[in-house]
Amino acid sequence: MDIRALTFDVFGTVVDWRGGVIREGEAISRKRGLKVDWAVFADAWRNEYQPAMDEIISGRRGFVKLDVLHRENLERVIPRFGLDALDQGERDSLTFLWHRLDPWPDAVVGLNRLKRKFTLATLSNGNVSLMVNMARRAGLPWDTILGAEVSRIYKPQPEAYLSAADMLGLRPDQVLMVAAHNGDLIASSKCGFRTAFVLRPTEHGPDQKTDLKAELSVDFDVKSFIELAERLGA
Amino acid sequence: MDIRALTFDVFGTVVDWRGGVIREGEAISRKRGLKVDWAVFADAWRNEYQPAMDEIISGRRGFVKLDVLHRENLERVIPRFGLDALDQGERDSLTFLWHRLDPWPDAVVGLNRLKRKFTLATLSNGNVSLMVNMARRAGLPWDTILGAEVSRIYKPQPEAYLSAADMLGLRPDQVLMVAAHNGDLIASSKCGFRTAFVLRPTEHGPDQKTDLKAELSVDFDVKSFIELAERLGA
Repeated sequence: MDIRALTFDVFGTVVDWRGGVIREGEAISRKRGLKVDWAVFADAWRNEYQPAMDEIISGRRGFVKLDVLHRENLERVIPRFGLDALDQGERDSLTFLWHRLDPWPDAVVGLNRLKRKFTLATLSNGNVSLMVNMARRAGLPWDTILGAEVSRIYKPQPEAYLSAADMLGLRPDQVLMVAAHNGDLIASSKCGFRTAFVLRPTEHGPDQKTDLKAELSVDFDVKSFIELAERLGA
Repeated sequence: MDIRALTFDVFGTVVDWRGGVIREGEAISRKRGLKVDWAVFADAWRNEYQPAMDEIISGRRGFVKLDVLHRENLERVIPRFGLDALDQGERDSLTFLWHRLDPWPDAVVGLNRLKRKFTLATLSNGNVSLMVNMARRAGLPWDTILGAEVSRIYKPQPEAYLSAADMLGLRPDQVLMVAAHNGDLIASSKCGFRTAFVLRPTEHGPDQKTDLKAELSVDFDVKSFIELAERLGA
């Protein structure tokens, strides 16, 4: 193997999006005296993600950045949770909480080790400002932000992966895709990327049923970015 | 002013491209026993830059990354300097020396100070891998790489600036364009960017005649990134 760069899925792989939604939602509950099951809300909001992107992937809708989809999807779930009283500022704040998600505990240490040896880039469906704001807040040491907004195409379309490798000036087999999701790894593997599965067993909460193991033949199967750094000699 | 991010021209503003070409050229001269005035070579190579980009800006040619233009331009100047004996490996090495340029002495210290307070992004005509490799070698702490390859349009076209601000999630007047070149600042200013002129009086060698002062009304007129950090309270 001649790995030169690592590309990362971010939501769920690097950061805990569900915990972040719950945390910021509970702050709203305290302030507003509203009773909401924010874990259920987080799942409902996230469940709108794929259908919204499918409109763009199918070509029925032109490219828009994920911030826009997050806001539209938020408006869709708000009435189901009795949150119609939230004002525009609160809706903006919820929309942009995705810029303020916390990394899993091993992420920053592991990335800093990996960066000594490899170029590190995001390959997420999140937009550039989301990724930049998240990285600055959390200390994620990306060399650059790649992904959907830069390529103007959402994963798992092949061109999302291929254009990232091209921008890195590398062949796909010189790039290791790191993700906690089998779908992402299968799609990148079909494009010729090397693959690393990172187990994130509580991304979807304590009763998670999916992505508990690699469902393809991966190059690295690890439980943390620190273990990945060790395996890669970084 | 409500500046949130700084975008940087890179060649000449952050790094000394002419000194880099001379340094790597002289290493080839020593190895090969060739007598070449590498300063004249550097200027000749760089003089091919604008006409090559103009082909793309005019729409006569589709977008190709700067590495490709650098290589084509190199092939154009090689015969004029009696360098036809250079093999493919040496031509590749010369082409990619743009990935290995050294920053001006104040650049890394200044950028690290500025990064504490502002998002820092490249807004260069250089391609992504060129910018990433340069940053990793030189320690340039960019939050992300923007510019021609990401926007698929070369400066000074307005969309090159406007798409960078959009990707940063900011209005143009929240972004400060930092450059040693009046043309770049005039073009970004027309798009609504704030502007900082940084004097680089030897970019074109000891007898430089151009860009020795700001030829527009700029927000900041400085001699180094450290002075810029001081002016911005960073």
